[in-house]
Amino acid sequence: METTMNEIGIGLLGFGTVGAGVVEGLQRHADLIAARVGARPVLRWIADLDLERDRGVAVDRALLTRDAKAVVEDPAVDVVIELIGGVGIARELVTRALELGKPVVTANKKLLAEHGESLFGLAAARGAALAFEASVAGGIPIIKALREGLVANHIDAVYGILNGTCNYILTRMEREGLAFDAALKAAQSEGYAEAEPSLDIDGYDTAHKAALLATLAYGCSVPMQALHVEGIRGIATDEIRYAAELGYRVKLLAIIKHEASGISARVHPTLVPARHMLGSVDGVYNAVLVRGDIVGDTLYYGRGAGRLPTASAVLADVADIASRLARGEKTTPPVLPPGGARARLVELAEVRARYYLRLSLLDRPGVLARVAAILGANGISIASMIQKEQRQGGHVPVIALTHDAEERSFRAALAEIDTLDVVGAPTVALRIEDFA
Amino acid sequence: METTMNEIGIGLLGFGTVGAGVVEGLQRHADLIAARVGARPVLRWIADLDLERDRGVAVDRALLTRDAKAVVEDPAVDVVIELIGGVGIARELVTRALELGKPVVTANKKLLAEHGESLFGLAAARGAALAFEASVAGGIPIIKALREGLVANHIDAVYGILNGTCNYILTRMEREGLAFDAALKAAQSEGYAEAEPSLDIDGYDTAHKAALLATLAYGCSVPMQALHVEGIRGIATDEIRYAAELGYRVKLLAIIKHEASGISARVHPTLVPARHMLGSVDGVYNAVLVRGDIVGDTLYYGRGAGRLPTASAVLADVADIASRLARGEKTTPPVLPPGGARARLVELAEVRARYYLRLSLLDRPGVLARVAAILGANGISIASMIQKEQRQGGHVPVIALTHDAEERSFRAALAEIDTLDVVGAPTVALRIEDFA
Repeated sequence: METTMNEIGIGLLGFGTVGAGVVEGLQRHADLIAARVGARPVLRWIADLDLERDRGVAVDRALLTRDAKAVVEDPAVDVVIELIGGVGIARELVTRALELGKPVVTANKKLLAEHGESLFGLAAARGAALAFEASVAGGIPIIKALREGLVANHIDAVYGILNGTCNYILTRMEREGLAFDAALKAAQSEGYAEAEPSLDIDGYDTAHKAALLATLAYGCSVPMQALHVEGIRGIATDEIRYAAELGYRVKLLAIIKHEASGISARVHPTLVPARHMLGSVDGVYNAVLVRGDIVGDTLYYGRGAGRLPTASAVLADVADIASRLARGEKTTPPVLPPGGARARLVELAEVRARYYLRLSLLDRPGVLARVAAILGANGISIASMIQKEQRQGGHVPVIALTHDAEERSFRAALAEIDTLDVVGAPTVALRIEDFA
Repeated sequence: METTMNEIGIGLLGFGTVGAGVVEGLQRHADLIAARVGARPVLRWIADLDLERDRGVAVDRALLTRDAKAVVEDPAVDVVIELIGGVGIARELVTRALELGKPVVTANKKLLAEHGESLFGLAAARGAALAFEASVAGGIPIIKALREGLVANHIDAVYGILNGTCNYILTRMEREGLAFDAALKAAQSEGYAEAEPSLDIDGYDTAHKAALLATLAYGCSVPMQALHVEGIRGIATDEIRYAAELGYRVKLLAIIKHEASGISARVHPTLVPARHMLGSVDGVYNAVLVRGDIVGDTLYYGRGAGRLPTASAVLADVADIASRLARGEKTTPPVLPPGGARARLVELAEVRARYYLRLSLLDRPGVLARVAAILGANGISIASMIQKEQRQGGHVPVIALTHDAEERSFRAALAEIDTLDVVGAPTVALRIEDFA
């Protein structure tokens, strides 16, 4: 007996790196996906302004078009994949597709971090899916894990290494003792960093993803502006070396936490224990630790970017939608529950953390006591302190790890310390996360 | 405007440790689940033979019954959760529920590993879900990741640390230098091992889970009997210590691989690189590495057992089903695609691996050469060899790591080596997995 297989028409907008990966994935595994979900994804159109460049995949030229709007309107297109990026034309096309009630799959974290609330609202109103697995942590199915796998949990915290470029740079700095600039150059020549690397190394890419994860975890829109963002540009090799001696590694970490007074969301270089799973994440890999109140700690690891890993996530969303369409499901669970209240977002000044300090102090009796007194007066106690070198009369680096302290008190203490006449250079401070 | 929320009636069969966790999870988070999926799970019945024992959760006594069959038949029960375990009454009840077209959620890996093919077939025929996230790796949403998150991938390999008891014992042995028996006793007194620990330590529990993962990865029933299973009972502290010196840790690993000639599936103690993510998994935690041809390596980590982590997985399945029912989805994607062929399973003898050897050799010139000659004659080359101690005239331990070799050749070489008059005790052999 022959079974009639549903076909799901795909309109692909954007034929860049990931777009070519999606085409390759469909060429290789349309049959596999069809067997698994009971509906066959079929590519109807590929829209791009550049129809000539070789993307390394053979495509039927009849599928190519420069008219992305017509692709969205075509009744033969059941699902729109948006891989154009940015918030200009991409936003228009996604909006139009959702208005038509067509499910949209996108990897566009910027669009969702900046306009997610209205787009998710539109999607919910039309009962159309707006799927974005590929927008966070590439091929790792973290969106699905958070939305579905851990659906029975209140989320206590999410910790993520979400930018492969930064993690690659930090790994090279640690392994080879490279300075930041040299490691960035290496990342650029390996194709892991852009010529203009600011979006990655200044933490904005991570922040876009963190805003999305926070939105999902707490069912309320968390705007980018609510996040405190520091990148890795200023990181010195010294910090990485001293951290290693103390059993830590420096990672650019997104931290989203449910605190007593609200939700805190921030991105900054962080000392994480080398023995912890997140401390074991090397090179371009990403990982996300999700702490649920029922399940405890779970962690998800994999390639956070790249042509095929990202395509894997795009096609998983397509397959989900195809499966639902094939089974006659009429609507899609909304990303933001209806009537979800705005979360109270905690200011950085209120957040508590442990700190790593590298002080530059005159090597003279009584100096450490003065620093300790200032910390103590601000309610900050020292967990351990190491004087790294002896140098007759000059300034020496002193490394201190503090116990838990409020950011506000910590900054006040630091400002006071840096005015001391025995301090030779501004104190370097990094937050520590022990995942306790 | 008041929205009418769909209620999904739950019949819970089995009020043991995990059952009590499910009740607690529902008490804490029924509202959260309802907000997230648009349907409220409501407990209609709890069936157990023992209605008196205190499970640490307060329940309305009117929900309790000893008549599990009546629970399955009750039209107010939309979803059946089976947490009885075993293949007796559990199989009857699951079968009956599916015959009635009712979705079933189970944590019963033994039932599915032994009778999955017929039960999945019945579920597909009735269009009812047979969901089992909780049966493998507890709270980690690995089934969802494999079936949905990686749906666009051919699965090249799955590697799993799937038994928390074994991993706890091995971690204690490594950290404290405990002998196996002492570490097992410690696990028992901590509540991490049963009084009769064979199911865990002899590898059968891991094998049940591996059979399920193989079935999912390749869309064809992989019977338990097809797996080669070795447990950790015979592991000596020496192996753990020598492995650590060589940069490895000993883990009970399930390995499922797509080989040129078919699928291999096995469970055995394995040396894994200490720096690898799977080498960082300590204590009762579980982790699964899935290698897809599109996405590359992804890894999933969390608590593999326990009252609440397992309940988290059960309730995720319930929420998925509730969401689908609420949105009018009529059928459920089958676990095994229709017409799925039987996989060719590769015999252990054909499998290739690297090996760790601890030889007991007379400390005399020419002895190593005789061993190396036998290995060489069987096509096995040595990657490194360390003589651990010098002892005048007696037998000394010699550690050798081999390159890739076929199990058949390796066993032949080992048998020959152990007949040599210079060998003081049977050679200890463990497989190495470098995840290359």
